[in-house]
Amino acid sequence: MRYSIFGESHGPAIGVVLEGVPAALELDLEQVQAELCRRAPGKDPTATARKEADRVHVLSGVFEGKTTGAPLCMVIQNTDQHSTDYEALRWTPRPSHGDYAGFIASQGALDFRGGGHFSGRLTAPLVAAGAVAKQILAQRDIWVGSHISAIYGVLDRAMDDPEELKSVAGKAFPVLDDAKGEEMRQAILEAKAEEDSVGGAIECAVMGVPAGFGAPDFGRNVEGIFSQYLFAVPAVKAVCFGAGVGFSYMRGSEANDPFEVTEGGVGTKTNNAGGVNGGITNGMPLVFEVTLRPTPSIALPQESFDLRTGEEAEIEIAGRHDPCIVPRAVPVIEAAAALAACEVLGI
Amino acid sequence: MRYSIFGESHGPAIGVVLEGVPAALELDLEQVQAELCRRAPGKDPTATARKEADRVHVLSGVFEGKTTGAPLCMVIQNTDQHSTDYEALRWTPRPSHGDYAGFIASQGALDFRGGGHFSGRLTAPLVAAGAVAKQILAQRDIWVGSHISAIYGVLDRAMDDPEELKSVAGKAFPVLDDAKGEEMRQAILEAKAEEDSVGGAIECAVMGVPAGFGAPDFGRNVEGIFSQYLFAVPAVKAVCFGAGVGFSYMRGSEANDPFEVTEGGVGTKTNNAGGVNGGITNGMPLVFEVTLRPTPSIALPQESFDLRTGEEAEIEIAGRHDPCIVPRAVPVIEAAAALAACEVLGI
Amino acid sequence: MRYSIFGESHGPAIGVVLEGVPAALELDLEQVQAELCRRAPGKDPTATARKEADRVHVLSGVFEGKTTGAPLCMVIQNTDQHSTDYEALRWTPRPSHGDYAGFIASQGALDFRGGGHFSGRLTAPLVAAGAVAKQILAQRDIWVGSHISAIYGVLDRAMDDPEELKSVAGKAFPVLDDAKGEEMRQAILEAKAEEDSVGGAIECAVMGVPAGFGAPDFGRNVEGIFSQYLFAVPAVKAVCFGAGVGFSYMRGSEANDPFEVTEGGVGTKTNNAGGVNGGITNGMPLVFEVTLRPTPSIALPQESFDLRTGEEAEIEIAGRHDPCIVPRAVPVIEAAAALAACEVLGI
Amino acid sequence: MRYSIFGESHGPAIGVVLEGVPAALELDLEQVQAELCRRAPGKDPTATARKEADRVHVLSGVFEGKTTGAPLCMVIQNTDQHSTDYEALRWTPRPSHGDYAGFIASQGALDFRGGGHFSGRLTAPLVAAGAVAKQILAQRDIWVGSHISAIYGVLDRAMDDPEELKSVAGKAFPVLDDAKGEEMRQAILEAKAEEDSVGGAIECAVMGVPAGFGAPDFGRNVEGIFSQYLFAVPAVKAVCFGAGVGFSYMRGSEANDPFEVTEGGVGTKTNNAGGVNGGITNGMPLVFEVTLRPTPSIALPQESFDLRTGEEAEIEIAGRHDPCIVPRAVPVIEAAAALAACEVLGI
Repeated sequence: MRYSIFGESHGPAIGVVLEGVPAALELDLEQVQAELCRRAPGKDPTATARKEADRVHVLSGVFEGKTTGAPLCMVIQNTDQHSTDYEALRWTPRPSHGDYAGFIASQGALDFRGGGHFSGRLTAPLVAAGAVAKQILAQRDIWVGSHISAIYGVLDRAMDDPEELKSVAGKAFPVLDDAKGEEMRQAILEAKAEEDSVGGAIECAVMGVPAGFGAPDFGRNVEGIFSQYLFAVPAVKAVCFGAGVGFSYMRGSEANDPFEVTEGGVGTKTNNAGGVNGGITNGMPLVFEVTLRPTPSIALPQESFDLRTGEEAEIEIAGRHDPCIVPRAVPVIEAAAALAACEVLGI
Repeated sequence: MRYSIFGESHGPAIGVVLEGVPAALELDLEQVQAELCRRAPGKDPTATARKEADRVHVLSGVFEGKTTGAPLCMVIQNTDQHSTDYEALRWTPRPSHGDYAGFIASQGALDFRGGGHFSGRLTAPLVAAGAVAKQILAQRDIWVGSHISAIYGVLDRAMDDPEELKSVAGKAFPVLDDAKGEEMRQAILEAKAEEDSVGGAIECAVMGVPAGFGAPDFGRNVEGIFSQYLFAVPAVKAVCFGAGVGFSYMRGSEANDPFEVTEGGVGTKTNNAGGVNGGITNGMPLVFEVTLRPTPSIALPQESFDLRTGEEAEIEIAGRHDPCIVPRAVPVIEAAAALAACEVLGI
Repeated sequence: MRYSIFGESHGPAIGVVLEGVPAALELDLEQVQAELCRRAPGKDPTATARKEADRVHVLSGVFEGKTTGAPLCMVIQNTDQHSTDYEALRWTPRPSHGDYAGFIASQGALDFRGGGHFSGRLTAPLVAAGAVAKQILAQRDIWVGSHISAIYGVLDRAMDDPEELKSVAGKAFPVLDDAKGEEMRQAILEAKAEEDSVGGAIECAVMGVPAGFGAPDFGRNVEGIFSQYLFAVPAVKAVCFGAGVGFSYMRGSEANDPFEVTEGGVGTKTNNAGGVNGGITNGMPLVFEVTLRPTPSIALPQESFDLRTGEEAEIEIAGRHDPCIVPRAVPVIEAAAALAACEVLGI
Repeated sequence: MRYSIFGESHGPAIGVVLEGVPAALELDLEQVQAELCRRAPGKDPTATARKEADRVHVLSGVFEGKTTGAPLCMVIQNTDQHSTDYEALRWTPRPSHGDYAGFIASQGALDFRGGGHFSGRLTAPLVAAGAVAKQILAQRDIWVGSHISAIYGVLDRAMDDPEELKSVAGKAFPVLDDAKGEEMRQAILEAKAEEDSVGGAIECAVMGVPAGFGAPDFGRNVEGIFSQYLFAVPAVKAVCFGAGVGFSYMRGSEANDPFEVTEGGVGTKTNNAGGVNGGITNGMPLVFEVTLRPTPSIALPQESFDLRTGEEAEIEIAGRHDPCIVPRAVPVIEAAAALAACEVLGI
């Protein structure tokens, strides 16, 4: 399976083509729509005021409710656009956005309106593609869950067991410990009040992947496959498996996961490896954490320059922006993980 | 350019095929050999006592000292092998090694001797391939440097400027602050004395990559490309760009890199982004850190089980193992980074 | 550059996503439309009576008239559909169509209406993608031309020089010798009158590709790249470069192309190799011929069977079908060739 | 599965790396060697006098006789080399060889000795890889057979049933009709006597591939996949499926393959489609024919030029060359077909 996302924030439509979808899957479009709703803004005061009526239209690949195996194209029309908000910034790239790098890469032909193809809005088709992947995985009793693990230094409590994530999925603010969630929301609202933004992290688990998928080699190892999908999500700057950066504080005797054989099969007592040894799944849940940078769009004045003259210029970004994209990124990370899991499984 | 690494720790030879090498490059084989020496054990008491006389033989792709553009195959013979050390562990997988996952993946046909294809020894051909990549990059004034940034909680001092890494390259223990390096070495020796191992981290920079390479899309974004190469290095469990996991403690106003225009061109005052915005290079050094887990091979007794009977079994791993692979992994990470940089540049 | 075509004959729309389009190309949409018109039916009495108002809509990847380098999505709405024509054939696959093979591949979930994703209609987005490729090639003074070389045994005269193809491009029935073209049209009309169809061939040339592109290796050799694009055109069953099947009647002394050095550079006196030696372009025009099978949809009664019961069944195909698809396939083959040339050139 | 062939005719060794080999296959190395013997020269007076003692060495990927799933590297040492034969031609490219195109592609750094990486000798590792593929296919009751279908205009009799190819496999000169084979050999010997060469064709069949593999789309259609493998064989200039170029002389009523349902399952009475409809296997044997150009190396004087001065130069090619490579190409085409079949089957 292979996905191609297309579209720009202020173009006529955004969408995705999924090639290699298994045939004869009863596609539940309501579930696709439900995933898009999880990502939609406006459900929590911490999110942007933009209203994104993301309704997905299937253009191809489905017949009489089932996937045909032909490329599956899903499209979302663009509607709520305020292009004028952006015109002012055409020649003054926003710090830490893709504006400048994109301007160079496009040889000046960048669609700058609303971030163009770099917009976080492009994660909507990714969520739609991931929703299809989740349904394919569900047929094999594999599911993907996640929680917000950190925002601006406020950490959710540690996860005892990935099974806990099932209860988190339906929450408006998906954390294990709601008190911690409330602290996180306060941190976001404070940043918003100060015209600033905050970063955070999401911990994700893929449950039910059998042992033996992947390989140590380039292009086939599980961590490498997942990371390629995860870094394709805008704002992701770190991908950590299992104990992750914590390994550099550990000894082998702590880090190693002792085997245990139970009725359910071979497992390990701990899961510091995050379900992967030697690039291959070991049957334990695949667990990883991604860090997302603070939204670069802040209202505070910032230092930029004029792309035409090279002269310094101070900018202030108008428009409606999420002071923290982490809450809305939760279904996006799950979508990327679901697509990665399909690749690992050879789907 | 695309590489395929082949071989097993105790097979006749290991090697690599590099396809798509630019033609007419004057290949400096001494430099390839020099990179292999940086990776070789035995140069520091913290490393394994195994002696690896890794001499590379070019089988193809070079004629009269120049690359021809045809696939470049480099082979290293295997010599110093103690297969009997491993026979005892054939049916009792070592915790947190690839043994069990690999046993399942290979349907039982795993070459278990010395870790087989999963052995850290397979990083030798990777270093050789990376040495070729470095020479290609050097023609474009791009170079790759790195330092050990952490071992068992001992952190090297923060890097002021990636240019500093030039002075680190020649050190036997490559750190910025040699006093910290000495602490790290002590931590390794203590672990070794206690039949244990320790993890750590390497910070790496690629200097000289112009702005405008990459794309936000899956398969083409810079972080995604680098991470795929980096996670293909055994023991790497986390890949963090720029401020990395630190972003989840930051506000946008701290995290954003203000632009500055100097005689050298457009840059940013800070480099929290690690040289990448929107998946595209922005002209600043590409900076990232990888975390490597502690060597899973420790002499302390560990809990395993018998692959044939499923019964619990305690194991003790004999043989000679690095109590910390981080020092030897430095040129390996640089090799992976050099190959990744070539892909980003469309080489 | 990479294309993904999606859609079904009787779905809401068909389209294509082109990834890796060079940025800052002034895209001439009129020319894209003009290529689609070359492919449209109804311009000649030998073609089907279906009217395909193929108007292309750009959904993404173009801003202010220029390509941005982001994925370029073009969509064509479906309008003129007679699904009822096909319902009768749902369970009785048409001989030599994709119906049966597609039924198995889709596990029964085949969109059978109008051929679904197998429909010749899906060549419209291919032509649109090829029109973009042609504009990219034109910037490098590379152009693609072709003529109908055979229909039902009537052969066009031999091409003296690929430059001749420039004058053929505008013809309603693109042949070098119009008298031969008239014979071909008669052959088509006779087949049509007898409720039958005929096959034929198209010879195509790509002019202006410099020497030195490609490689002998799998995945990189010029003939292999072109053939993959050409066989993706429905009905193509043979791809022959240069003297093609004629080589099996030749001696080396006839087949070899003697070199000649002129003011224009190094060339060969003949071009039996079709511009490729050892999988690499030699600077001569790339010349190849493809054979297209007769349209399998004929009104004559044919032997089929019932997919549900396995019982024999005679079918008669209603609906409007081209008695020969070769004339309409001319711009399709050129489109495939243009996309292949881009890959060969590393675009 | 993916193969990378490396090596040059006069380098130390040639070889192949096969990635993605299914694990736990009992690899029969004698059979690999037997395929190499089928390709070896010297078994028939029509072949070159060079002696190629092609003994394959497995460097990796096999343990205790079974494939491990890790990359499988096979190497063949080079021994019988007469580099001096070639020195004379260093600056005067041989017509219709890869010399000139390769010189440009390599920016002058071409290994010209014995054709270097372009040598027909590089088909030996391809045969070895194909021999592994054949063993994988045999586990699924799929086999590949072929016969010489034409040499210099002498045609073998038409194949009634691909099953006939089983009896051809063991022949020194593999044709269906030995009398025709004798005529072909005479044609070769005459050409040899006149210091010339001849071209020909090979018809190949893959038996036992079930219906439903492949897709109409680019990169996934069966003809496209096969053609990419087949054109990677040096000297192949045409690939024709089923009735091939004959389709341009046919009507739909002749070309269409009527269905028939027998005890063995669904099939067709004829197999003009060569086992593929809509890019998908239909369960019938995959049948295709490839045309191979006459060996460009002939002893007759030919027109070339000096790469350094651009001046015309007449050349005479010394050395030992096959006056017709078709007989030795038979196992090579089968190897390419076997590898292609694996890709089609998703192996």
